Amino acid sequence: MSKKITKRSDDFSRWYNDIITHADLAENSGVRGCMVIKPYGFAIWEQMKSVLDKMFKDTGHVNAYFPLFIPKSFFTKEAKHVDGFAKECAVVTHYRLKNNDTGEIVVDEDAKLEEELIVRPTSETIIWDTYKRWIKSYRDLPLLINQWANVVRWEMRTRLFLRTSEFLWQEGHTAHSTSEEAVEETKKILDIYINFIQKTLAVPVIFGTKSDNERFAGAEETYCVEALMQDGKALQAGTSHFLGQNFAKAFDVKYASKEGKLEYVWASSWGVSTRLMGALIMTHSDDLGLVLPPILAPIQVVLIPIYHSQDEFKEITLKLKEISDVLKSKNIRVIEDFKDTRKPGWKFSEYELKGVPIRIAMGPKDVKNDSVEIFRRDTLSKQNVKIVDIAQHIEDTLDSIQKKLFEKAKKFNKENTHYADNFEDFKEKINLGGFVYAHWDGTSDTENTIKKITKATIRTIPLNEKSEKGICVYSGKPSTRRVVFAKSY
Amino acid sequence: MSKKITKRSDDFSRWYNDIITHADLAENSGVRGCMVIKPYGFAIWEQMKSVLDKMFKDTGHVNAYFPLFIPKSFFTKEAKHVDGFAKECAVVTHYRLKNNDTGEIVVDEDAKLEEELIVRPTSETIIWDTYKRWIKSYRDLPLLINQWANVVRWEMRTRLFLRTSEFLWQEGHTAHSTSEEAVEETKKILDIYINFIQKTLAVPVIFGTKSDNERFAGAEETYCVEALMQDGKALQAGTSHFLGQNFAKAFDVKYASKEGKLEYVWASSWGVSTRLMGALIMTHSDDLGLVLPPILAPIQVVLIPIYHSQDEFKEITLKLKEISDVLKSKNIRVIEDFKDTRKPGWKFSEYELKGVPIRIAMGPKDVKNDSVEIFRRDTLSKQNVKIVDIAQHIEDTLDSIQKKLFEKAKKFNKENTHYADNFEDFKEKINLGGFVYAHWDGTSDTENTIKKITKATIRTIPLNEKSEKGICVYSGKPSTRRVVFAKSY
Repeated sequence: MSKKITKRSDDFSRWYNDIITHADLAENSGVRGCMVIKPYGFAIWEQMKSVLDKMFKDTGHVNAYFPLFIPKSFFTKEAKHVDGFAKECAVVTHYRLKNNDTGEIVVDEDAKLEEELIVRPTSETIIWDTYKRWIKSYRDLPLLINQWANVVRWEMRTRLFLRTSEFLWQEGHTAHSTSEEAVEETKKILDIYINFIQKTLAVPVIFGTKSDNERFAGAEETYCVEALMQDGKALQAGTSHFLGQNFAKAFDVKYASKEGKLEYVWASSWGVSTRLMGALIMTHSDDLGLVLPPILAPIQVVLIPIYHSQDEFKEITLKLKEISDVLKSKNIRVIEDFKDTRKPGWKFSEYELKGVPIRIAMGPKDVKNDSVEIFRRDTLSKQNVKIVDIAQHIEDTLDSIQKKLFEKAKKFNKENTHYADNFEDFKEKINLGGFVYAHWDGTSDTENTIKKITKATIRTIPLNEKSEKGICVYSGKPSTRRVVFAKSY
Repeated sequence: MSKKITKRSDDFSRWYNDIITHADLAENSGVRGCMVIKPYGFAIWEQMKSVLDKMFKDTGHVNAYFPLFIPKSFFTKEAKHVDGFAKECAVVTHYRLKNNDTGEIVVDEDAKLEEELIVRPTSETIIWDTYKRWIKSYRDLPLLINQWANVVRWEMRTRLFLRTSEFLWQEGHTAHSTSEEAVEETKKILDIYINFIQKTLAVPVIFGTKSDNERFAGAEETYCVEALMQDGKALQAGTSHFLGQNFAKAFDVKYASKEGKLEYVWASSWGVSTRLMGALIMTHSDDLGLVLPPILAPIQVVLIPIYHSQDEFKEITLKLKEISDVLKSKNIRVIEDFKDTRKPGWKFSEYELKGVPIRIAMGPKDVKNDSVEIFRRDTLSKQNVKIVDIAQHIEDTLDSIQKKLFEKAKKFNKENTHYADNFEDFKEKINLGGFVYAHWDGTSDTENTIKKITKATIRTIPLNEKSEKGICVYSGKPSTRRVVFAKSY
């Protein structure tokens, strides 16, 4: 079989690429740094979108669409924001091609734009230019708007799903009359992300705020959700920013309060992206291929007949078809693979590779026993189940897989969470991989030095952690609480 | 009231813009030619997407995602294709900004791309470059893939939804082993579009093929769906192209047949866009505002209390809340507008403007009678209905509105469909507006001349029309069937 997957222990990075390739999730395109998301990978992303979109709508958010292009002058209005994004943006300078004298197709220099357009790396600037027209009075607030879109950040070193020049995401942009309300929104979204990632992706996370170094360009405070991959590296899974009045001031967006006073508007922005596909893969998958939580699996159950004669084939597929109908009536996503061009063994590996949570196989013996063989992708275990019990059993097993995947990953996170109290200890623990809780003196200098020496950064300053007096692992200066360090994607 | 709408009879074009502005559908952005789709407008588009996406999936299509950017060299591989799109494309030439000596943010000339990237105006080229990697054997066929995406075609004269530099659409790209199968797919999609536009948008259409002049750049045959707007102009609502082997040849995509022979792959591509929003507005809306078919209405029913005292308010809103719950349990999209900051009259106009299909109002008298007042947006008629009958009545009325809107538009189309047998007659009929069925000699020369004189083009060469001997209205040369002329958007 040509679909051999590198073992995680041999080369984690090649293993990751092998899963993506062989499970048909995505591939590099002919355009540097841009990926093609293949139908199977895209179906998983669509599933994520649909769950998250409902969570946003249930909390009063609405979708809209803003332009792909941002005039350079908008982009430069918020100083920190442009600093953060100018080095990695695609710039449109012309709007026409033409044939030159030798018949070659070239850029038409007569069609040069007066002002260059930036392909959005994020949409704060174009959206706040729009909000200026929409917000006049406190009655227009809050605005709770989300957009599903493609964005472009020019990356020199790209990796499928994790870091691509173009990626898909949602970006929420809200406007409020008070600071408190904007902060509350920022935290509400953080909660939605935590819930979504833990319950739907079955990926356990830690959460908190970012240090100055890691804060979003233009934000007052960045809240984040961090997950831990099987190689011990952290992955930022989502961020929610309290923007203060920075963009309102940059775009002069004021509202008339109930008292008739003109005040600058308060803001939040927040997003998760196709990066979550990377988190999903690197949290659950194994050396046999992709492992998917049932909620996101495009195919939850595959039915495969095992037979020698055509009579057996007829009898078995008839029974399997009945089972399939029962499962479909319960809204379970089932496919029947009755193709006779492939042997059962080949099919077994193929669906294991693709992370289908449950496989139902039926052979001549099973027919006699009125039962089927059920295989769980997560535990690789088999069980014979009576046909009469099948619907309940499958529903329970799908629930169980969703829970077990989370528990397994949670256990992994716990086992790979360390505490360090001096720098020797810290370096050792960082090299083990995982999260390292350590005291930090709160300065960017110390953070930068630690990064230079160990490659670890502060992933988050955890919320809801008790304060604890201590001394910074590097500088020895006093500290009031531990922060979380890790090497990261 | 500031939301005054121009009458259609006074200025159809201003009426169209007024509807879009005052019903909060979309607006021009700070970026030339690019629109912002506002939440209410976007909710209608989301509704369209969800219905059409299901139709695609039910017929075996899957979604995927391909890069936004297309290398110039890909773009130029199919000669007619590049001719068709080169004059209107946004070109990315650089990937970085920098601060110049005076601190100004400018394009970094050191970050010039070796090869320019075109922002996709349509994705045939990048997709066929990808299909080359995916297709080896007949077993890999057919590929039935759709993408929901933004595309850019640089337009000099833009109109919201109808012609914008960036727009949203779906584009299907399929690959087949035989010509017959590709043609069948092209026609199957045409059928889906006809059904979707007539049943969901309630917009009647005619359909057929395009003449050489109007054919998609790179296609062998373009099938199209054409609608008629209230000002008598036609609007192309969707196209489905049989691409022959043109893109397979340009990108060298061959498959090994069952017999082991290498053959070029056959293709189709097809799309509808946010232009459909324009068709929707200009087909149904009236001088009071937007009129929406219930299937697409983000709000299907609005509940409004009419009261003088607080006691009345309490009693009425309690009853309305009960009605609301009943309707919600039937999956009807209901909102309660109980805000006391606006008078009922203001609310009535507002929801009429927004095209909400049904309004339910309840005053003190209605409470006594156990009834409510039901207002239909399409006919502007009112009726008292007993609360006990409400669910059934609303369901029936929503169905009735959906059907009546289609019938009304169908009647309009019929009344504005003319036949012309000589050029004087033809010019007169074209000036009346509407579709004109006339004989044509089949040459581009004649089509171009007719366009120059009358501004009318051939909208479609109808399928399923009986053949009929005649002479071309312009040249007098023989013709075997009538084609459909109209002025168009």
